[in-house]
Amino acid sequence: MQDVVKIAVDAMGGDNAPGQIIKGAVEAVNDRKDIKVFLVGKEDIINAELKQYDFNANQIEVINANEVISNDEAPVMAIRRKKESSIVVSLNLVKNGDADAFVSAGSTGAVLVGGQFIVGRIKGVERPPLAPLLPTIKGVSLLIDCGANVDARSSHLVQFAKMGSIYMENVVGIKNPRVAIVNIGAEEEKGNMLVKETYPLLKNCPDINFIGSIEARDIPYGGADVIVCEAFVGNVILKLYEGVGSAIISSVKKGLLSSFQSKIGALLIKKDLKRTLKSFDASEHGGAPLLGLNGLVVKTHGSSKSTEVKNSIIQCVTFKQQRINEKIKENLSMNED
Amino acid sequence: MQDVVKIAVDAMGGDNAPGQIIKGAVEAVNDRKDIKVFLVGKEDIINAELKQYDFNANQIEVINANEVISNDEAPVMAIRRKKESSIVVSLNLVKNGDADAFVSAGSTGAVLVGGQFIVGRIKGVERPPLAPLLPTIKGVSLLIDCGANVDARSSHLVQFAKMGSIYMENVVGIKNPRVAIVNIGAEEEKGNMLVKETYPLLKNCPDINFIGSIEARDIPYGGADVIVCEAFVGNVILKLYEGVGSAIISSVKKGLLSSFQSKIGALLIKKDLKRTLKSFDASEHGGAPLLGLNGLVVKTHGSSKSTEVKNSIIQCVTFKQQRINEKIKENLSMNED
Repeated sequence: MQDVVKIAVDAMGGDNAPGQIIKGAVEAVNDRKDIKVFLVGKEDIINAELKQYDFNANQIEVINANEVISNDEAPVMAIRRKKESSIVVSLNLVKNGDADAFVSAGSTGAVLVGGQFIVGRIKGVERPPLAPLLPTIKGVSLLIDCGANVDARSSHLVQFAKMGSIYMENVVGIKNPRVAIVNIGAEEEKGNMLVKETYPLLKNCPDINFIGSIEARDIPYGGADVIVCEAFVGNVILKLYEGVGSAIISSVKKGLLSSFQSKIGALLIKKDLKRTLKSFDASEHGGAPLLGLNGLVVKTHGSSKSTEVKNSIIQCVTFKQQRINEKIKENLSMNED
Repeated sequence: MQDVVKIAVDAMGGDNAPGQIIKGAVEAVNDRKDIKVFLVGKEDIINAELKQYDFNANQIEVINANEVISNDEAPVMAIRRKKESSIVVSLNLVKNGDADAFVSAGSTGAVLVGGQFIVGRIKGVERPPLAPLLPTIKGVSLLIDCGANVDARSSHLVQFAKMGSIYMENVVGIKNPRVAIVNIGAEEEKGNMLVKETYPLLKNCPDINFIGSIEARDIPYGGADVIVCEAFVGNVILKLYEGVGSAIISSVKKGLLSSFQSKIGALLIKKDLKRTLKSFDASEHGGAPLLGLNGLVVKTHGSSKSTEVKNSIIQCVTFKQQRINEKIKENLSMNED
């Protein structure tokens, strides 16, 4: 039998906390026996929610944390001051080895800062990147980095490419994942200073499958499996992806209600349209891991509902069982020699 | 009567040249009497195409240019060597004052480089930005800069904000346009080094209506009228906009053909769906001006058909009649005092 993977879940973080978070945790443990969840937050509230569900009591443990970090708080200050917050208490569980992973739909800034400060980086990792999966017409691609560390150097981007490849191959199951760098043209001589510096380093990197530059328009078509960029650009890509998608979808819906004929048509296509649009919905694909830490920290959307929370928790099991952190350690130390 | 605006059109540039380009030019002169078009390119080919149309012969003049610059050529080299290309011949018409403006669907790089080298910058303009209009659910926003000059400085971005405001107010007709800088969060302290440096400069700039940061997800919702960023980020935004839009649209169409019920529904919604999707189609909004030159240079999509060519030509008339370049000169020199 495989070891049980222990996952701390921030019961207080996100727009739909605690209800949907706790529901997602229950669904995860009811789905798999090899998970133990620590629900971290105000214990009276969590216990009251838990009463409505059936689950194996050995698989869920409530850990009290009296404070909550909100999205408006400055992350560094919040992590320092709110020692009793659900985020800090959870990260300490990971740091002390009591939990293998931490899942939160709360403040992205606080999770990123806390992950680095409390859990700490794997030796050799210069910067831990945040790496969400983007839906494409072929499946998913890993966008790395979308974190809070802007103005990256080329050596950071090379590490992102390596860590991203390990993740896509072992967690998502894509053999020999194609790595590309976001650029403004396909040619090697194109790009800004950072990209021009990074391109030859990636080209000469033996342990990744580098296919060159990717222009932003090819990302939704699945032009690469691992999409490398610095965090400012990654953040723009991630948020524009969501924005353009939701704007078009709301326009299409509105357009369909503009005539009687279309209203009838809309009724007929509803089911297929919904399925199609769902395939472009990032929330189906679990959370974004913060890679390169001594433990796993996963940030899910602030708007996460139970399904995304459940998927994020299950993602942690694969991460642990596939020994991702050990593989990152081996890979980075190998290259230091 | 208003002066005739003289516009050089690159008859050889773009995926649909020369047919659609020449058709667009004819449509423009048939639409308005205050336009004269110079069709620049291989004259035998152009004359053969022109035979199928009726138009006022005084409004179209063919100017021979025997060479063509392709998209694969290195722009700087191509501009230097191909003196007889449609792009270089056209740009010289603008330089010499024989034409007020130049419209091309050809090589973006060559148009940008040639515009700067041949036509030259307005005194005081540090960098000429390329500024396409993006469709939003509210109308259009100006994205400035998407050009070839990456790694901009903060002073460049401030000029982009000013030139963009003048363009949106006078050409697009939006009073007191809202200016925002692309950022990874709404707060003033967020951002990369460039944004942090630029933000206070924009905030203290008296002649623009600066509303702060804009996150990428709010761009399709029309969160600002003038969207300021450096060219690498602008290029990513422009291309991802196109990519996500077309990927979702093709998925929706495919999804609608997956069941009999949806096929019937699809027939009923076809007209309204088409109109909705068209409103998100950048080609309806004319070309992107390269601002800050001693003359007007407009780059239209490589895939432009006659409607976009026509709209781009007509856009040049407004630009000239609204004295945009004079306003840019006044504004920049005022701020130098």
